Amino acid sequence: MDFIDEHLNHIKDKGLYRDFKFFTSSQSKYTSIDNRRVLLMASNNYLDLCADDRLKEAAEKAIYTYGVGSGGSRLITGSCKLHDQLEKKIADFKGAEAAIIFNTGYMANIGTITAISDQEWIIFSDELNHASIIDGCRLSGAKVVIYKHCNLDHLQEKIKIHQGKKRLIVTDGVFSMDGDIAPLDKIVELAKENKILTMVDDAHGTGVLGDNGAGSVEHFNLKGDIDIQVGTFSKALASEGGFVVGSKSLIEYLRHKARSFIYSTALSPVTIAVSLRSLDIVKNEREPRVKLLENSKWFQAKLRKLGFNVLESKTAIIALIIGNAAKARKLSEKLFEEGIFITAIRPPTVPDNTSRLRITLMSTHNRKDLKFALERLKKAGMELDVI
Amino acid sequence: MDFIDEHLNHIKDKGLYRDFKFFTSSQSKYTSIDNRRVLLMASNNYLDLCADDRLKEAAEKAIYTYGVGSGGSRLITGSCKLHDQLEKKIADFKGAEAAIIFNTGYMANIGTITAISDQEWIIFSDELNHASIIDGCRLSGAKVVIYKHCNLDHLQEKIKIHQGKKRLIVTDGVFSMDGDIAPLDKIVELAKENKILTMVDDAHGTGVLGDNGAGSVEHFNLKGDIDIQVGTFSKALASEGGFVVGSKSLIEYLRHKARSFIYSTALSPVTIAVSLRSLDIVKNEREPRVKLLENSKWFQAKLRKLGFNVLESKTAIIALIIGNAAKARKLSEKLFEEGIFITAIRPPTVPDNTSRLRITLMSTHNRKDLKFALERLKKAGMELDVI
Repeated sequence: MDFIDEHLNHIKDKGLYRDFKFFTSSQSKYTSIDNRRVLLMASNNYLDLCADDRLKEAAEKAIYTYGVGSGGSRLITGSCKLHDQLEKKIADFKGAEAAIIFNTGYMANIGTITAISDQEWIIFSDELNHASIIDGCRLSGAKVVIYKHCNLDHLQEKIKIHQGKKRLIVTDGVFSMDGDIAPLDKIVELAKENKILTMVDDAHGTGVLGDNGAGSVEHFNLKGDIDIQVGTFSKALASEGGFVVGSKSLIEYLRHKARSFIYSTALSPVTIAVSLRSLDIVKNEREPRVKLLENSKWFQAKLRKLGFNVLESKTAIIALIIGNAAKARKLSEKLFEEGIFITAIRPPTVPDNTSRLRITLMSTHNRKDLKFALERLKKAGMELDVI
Repeated sequence: MDFIDEHLNHIKDKGLYRDFKFFTSSQSKYTSIDNRRVLLMASNNYLDLCADDRLKEAAEKAIYTYGVGSGGSRLITGSCKLHDQLEKKIADFKGAEAAIIFNTGYMANIGTITAISDQEWIIFSDELNHASIIDGCRLSGAKVVIYKHCNLDHLQEKIKIHQGKKRLIVTDGVFSMDGDIAPLDKIVELAKENKILTMVDDAHGTGVLGDNGAGSVEHFNLKGDIDIQVGTFSKALASEGGFVVGSKSLIEYLRHKARSFIYSTALSPVTIAVSLRSLDIVKNEREPRVKLLENSKWFQAKLRKLGFNVLESKTAIIALIIGNAAKARKLSEKLFEEGIFITAIRPPTVPDNTSRLRITLMSTHNRKDLKFALERLKKAGMELDVI
């Protein structure tokens, strides 16, 4: 296995070696990493619900009612009453007829894309789509046509060139490493004109965007206009697992065809119970979402004023572009020494020379927290000649 | 989406339509399905640990220490101290240098195979390998050479034909739908002679086979001889998640290359805590394993005596072959009416015309339970002309 050592040496040389930071308390605005207290600005726990008492109580109750593991795949012994309830509730939340739960968003994407399409299909895919969409497209055997990031002219051009009856446009709703929102309204228009199916993965929009928190599709008022909506319970909803919502027949079809659904042990009842409870909370509490997006707007403006290169974002994700991977890592380390945890994101997660700090805000960050972060970012940024 | 309705009609016509049975209590020897009490003989919860109080306590403790969701991927904010502990403990249990946890066994297989191999590779794969191995092979782009189920002569023939430096043999340790064990000793011999890497997925052997429950590799005394060992916490270990163990550099490599590992939210601390505790229980308690395998031997002999077509098994999985899918389903339904839950397994999970009842035993089934099941199987089997 020489190729393994060669690859490891290569990534060490390139400054791309990765190791773990081990959390020693629950994931919240203030948390402990390796027993060191830090301000957390790197989590997908946007609404700071991972340590919420109501979710802990729901989890505890499920454990004592349903035990721990699910013991089997969904179609054998892995389905409990809670799975049924959650599938109905998430479909309702997203304004769709039906839903199917997968163990992860990754499995939702690869299971769905491979169930829907094969070598007779053409899939139009945004160049910055999540890895799980890319893997699903590859595994399906379909002809994959990449269009430039959120670029409608380019998409339209590609659609004209690649004609056929079996076509699908797939895009992230919110792009996880850039924080921008796909132009879903325009994409739907194009798709309808050309009779193309649409699929949106709203992992980072769910619970964050839209009046009721239903995500980017609600943000654009497109309920009913997207054929296949993917999402996850593991980000704003503070739980675990992915899902797909759509028509009743689509969901029934996926139940019989999506291999990552059929051939995997079901999520545990406790996980499902947490998702059920957090969905209620997110539906009923609008204020944290408003606060979260206000935080993001305010913080971005301040960062730009300091001279940082910050991508435009209307979500909780703020990409502070550094470029060089080793420098991005160094900046992240300096901030950690100062008591702030922000991860450096490097290739292959982002394209070469676009290494960045991926700052994610929480609804519970207050101005004092954000000012503290700005001050330390300024200091570290100047020391490293970033600003 | 006409193809969807067409497919649904097709499977309905073929007797392959699937729906859920919803459990209304924890998964144990006696359980409730749709509020009906049944004897459970279909679960992968082989040691009946899903409702074990020690695991419930471990889960509860983790919730109040670490909260619910993990909030991020393993390399960003998703790793807590428990993940570190579990990776060390499972490596030790399996007699390997290091380990990496994936969210599911499905993700472990596709992540590992695609990280290791590409179009320059040749993969020799048993024809009955699990769907996740098949999907991993496909996604990798490698040349996949299928050999007949557990057939060493055929494997050897294929190895001679397909020469090259980059070659991998991959097999299930225990085959999930047949219950037989791969001839790992002979496979290792062949692999060493021909300088081929070996990979074993021991989802159904872990916790069941071997003196210490370490699985099929321990069963054959092959610790250290298999390059890549995959397994799952979701079967005998009554929890959730998959893992890979191997050399330190292999694991480090997977951490940087396995896309299903990198691009997915980490398992929740509560899930990891349950796996940690159950691993201790399985390591320290030999008796339930012995009981489980005794049950299987006894029950198989009795089934054969009744005239059922039962595959040879040295594990907890007993395949009672029916052939016709609709008949298998009917038998399963009749048994359910009689208070026993055994699932009918039909295509595409098993090859056409090999539909079966997949009976799985638990260490807690006693002779009274098994005799009750035999009596009802006899009655239903005669009514349906199976025996």
